[in-house]
Amino acid sequence: MNTSGPCFLLTDFGDRDAYVGVMKAVMLKHAPSLQIVDLCHAIEPQNIVSASYVLWSVAAHLPEGSFVVAVVDPGVGTKRRIVALEFAQWTLLAPDNGIASLVLDHMQCQRSWEIRWEEICPQPPSATFHGRDIFAPAAALLASKQRTLEQIGRPIDPASLVRIDLAPVETASGIVARILHVDRFGNLVTNVEAARWNIPGSQHWICCVGDEQLPLVRTYADRAPGEPLAYIGSSGFVEIAVCNGSAAKRYGNAPSVMLQTTKPTTA
Amino acid sequence: MNTSGPCFLLTDFGDRDAYVGVMKAVMLKHAPSLQIVDLCHAIEPQNIVSASYVLWSVAAHLPEGSFVVAVVDPGVGTKRRIVALEFAQWTLLAPDNGIASLVLDHMQCQRSWEIRWEEICPQPPSATFHGRDIFAPAAALLASKQRTLEQIGRPIDPASLVRIDLAPVETASGIVARILHVDRFGNLVTNVEAARWNIPGSQHWICCVGDEQLPLVRTYADRAPGEPLAYIGSSGFVEIAVCNGSAAKRYGNAPSVMLQTTKPTTA
Amino acid sequence: MNTSGPCFLLTDFGDRDAYVGVMKAVMLKHAPSLQIVDLCHAIEPQNIVSASYVLWSVAAHLPEGSFVVAVVDPGVGTKRRIVALEFAQWTLLAPDNGIASLVLDHMQCQRSWEIRWEEICPQPPSATFHGRDIFAPAAALLASKQRTLEQIGRPIDPASLVRIDLAPVETASGIVARILHVDRFGNLVTNVEAARWNIPGSQHWICCVGDEQLPLVRTYADRAPGEPLAYIGSSGFVEIAVCNGSAAKRYGNAPSVMLQTTKPTTA
Repeated sequence: MNTSGPCFLLTDFGDRDAYVGVMKAVMLKHAPSLQIVDLCHAIEPQNIVSASYVLWSVAAHLPEGSFVVAVVDPGVGTKRRIVALEFAQWTLLAPDNGIASLVLDHMQCQRSWEIRWEEICPQPPSATFHGRDIFAPAAALLASKQRTLEQIGRPIDPASLVRIDLAPVETASGIVARILHVDRFGNLVTNVEAARWNIPGSQHWICCVGDEQLPLVRTYADRAPGEPLAYIGSSGFVEIAVCNGSAAKRYGNAPSVMLQTTKPTTA
Repeated sequence: MNTSGPCFLLTDFGDRDAYVGVMKAVMLKHAPSLQIVDLCHAIEPQNIVSASYVLWSVAAHLPEGSFVVAVVDPGVGTKRRIVALEFAQWTLLAPDNGIASLVLDHMQCQRSWEIRWEEICPQPPSATFHGRDIFAPAAALLASKQRTLEQIGRPIDPASLVRIDLAPVETASGIVARILHVDRFGNLVTNVEAARWNIPGSQHWICCVGDEQLPLVRTYADRAPGEPLAYIGSSGFVEIAVCNGSAAKRYGNAPSVMLQTTKPTTA
Repeated sequence: MNTSGPCFLLTDFGDRDAYVGVMKAVMLKHAPSLQIVDLCHAIEPQNIVSASYVLWSVAAHLPEGSFVVAVVDPGVGTKRRIVALEFAQWTLLAPDNGIASLVLDHMQCQRSWEIRWEEICPQPPSATFHGRDIFAPAAALLASKQRTLEQIGRPIDPASLVRIDLAPVETASGIVARILHVDRFGNLVTNVEAARWNIPGSQHWICCVGDEQLPLVRTYADRAPGEPLAYIGSSGFVEIAVCNGSAAKRYGNAPSVMLQTTKPTTA
């Protein structure tokens, strides 16, 4: 039935309106049997860093042949490019604004394209809703194999794609982290990727959040209710949580965070 | 596979409960291969005006043969009618409470029906959840072509349908607008339809919100971050926004709004 | 096409992240044509009582052959069991933490199993996201009939399942109720099941909320706007509402509630 894979949607369109619904209507108009799956629509408006993390959290788990449309697009109506990125297992359609940064840090982009939307839109798109007028028809036509990227795209150099540097900073005192994303439970996802920094490795790591020192443990239940903890989250980044509580409530959404190895305290 | 088109859902049921989920369960019980698509479930409880706008924002983009179920229904359990409206490309099932007003302002209703729910419900429906007990089975049976409106409906005169007058008021000083809908980004959608009022046309329009005068521009990026703007939104109505911000936060959800053409100020 | 029934999802994962989206990606990777349907993802984090009610509100309406995955799982990463419960019409996959309590009060569990996740996971699951690493592949393989419970489960005694006692307490003054769930409209769902307590029966019941006495009526419209009411909700439990308003705003989420039959007041 589906000769093509599913088409996943990631946006900051929220749920108050039919913005996502109308995108789906347009997609089904162009490809009636397309399998459309929601990834997330509650990205904080225009928060490309958070979207970049959420996109990465899914990327390794996509079925082969998946198509992902990511529309977090503060530049709608300007001349920013709309691009398609081909990875080994899946294809991404998104504005060229850095939303693919974390994915590009981890996965090889095989080919990249600028979408020539004139090939898709019978009439000029609206100035404020390219999700409906460009992304939806382009995604439907591509995901259902009615069009190829050769037909509606122009090859571009992957090195020309907009990238955001999300790496933490190593200092003499430790790894200075930033928060990429605050999740539904109030867990704070840092930009410290455990595997890249050999965490836990053979060393004893702690996570300093403001003035507090948190142990690096395996899961929530390794701490008593109400106690904070650091752990390696399900996407491989160090996260900060409070057992049965909310780290975002305890520390705010953007506390000062540093990862350190413990040293013997000197007298 | 789908001989019929997709079935879209629009409700004020929100996401805290399984109200939408149980509707889908009932629909799939009656029509296992029905393609069900969410339009929006976050309509403010019982806000028929907002629902009317959201429904209109989707109507022109529906695939041919679509079926739409709209349940924003403060009159559940009373004698208000449940009606089906046939348009050229799609069919609407809804309570007869004005939710179709904006659609009816723009699209020709070819035939309309009152649903005889006794034909569908094996036992009396609950007094509080007709979405589950009447709308879901009726929609599933109709959208999957197991029943026709001739079988479960009674023809009614489209002129008898409840309508809400949502048109703006023209005065000597300008067009007095009201807010139909506040979107996820805090944009305020007015009831001033650009095409009907020849906006922009050859005149220079401004939008007065309270004491402020906003220019009518093409898109968000035509203003600096933090600056307010008026523009023609993606559904053809004049909208009010703040570039990279929220008009709802700046002006509240229901400010005084007037559209005016600029005149030379007299000394 | 679907030899199996639909697979329904119920979680407390919310919508801020792609936790549900990545579960769906994993499910479709294992079973590309699986029909996945959202029941609810906005269960208050770790609120097993509310989840138990929401699950029950759907159970009687599921299509035959349905598969339900319910992940509200404060014990993730601990040794709590993951169990599958077979009912006459449907199968439930959930942590063994009481989430099935209300269903088990009403429906006969025919067979129950502990899932041997080692049979499904090629590598050890993460410590914090069993929804993605165990529930999603197990559900996809079972719902699509690629695996049977005999193959990946170990039979257990239904009597060994964790149960939460949610029954109200009968006292000399009346039935002391508790609130199971607060819905999107601010309606308060009590644990008093009308049929079990013969409500309304031939007696005249009132519902005491704090100091107020509410009449037991049929539907919202039986009271004037702003007036509180008690009624038998669509799942068969007594609920408390305010006509065109919110009982949760008026009374809070957990008021003192008692069901009483009226007696002649003595002088």
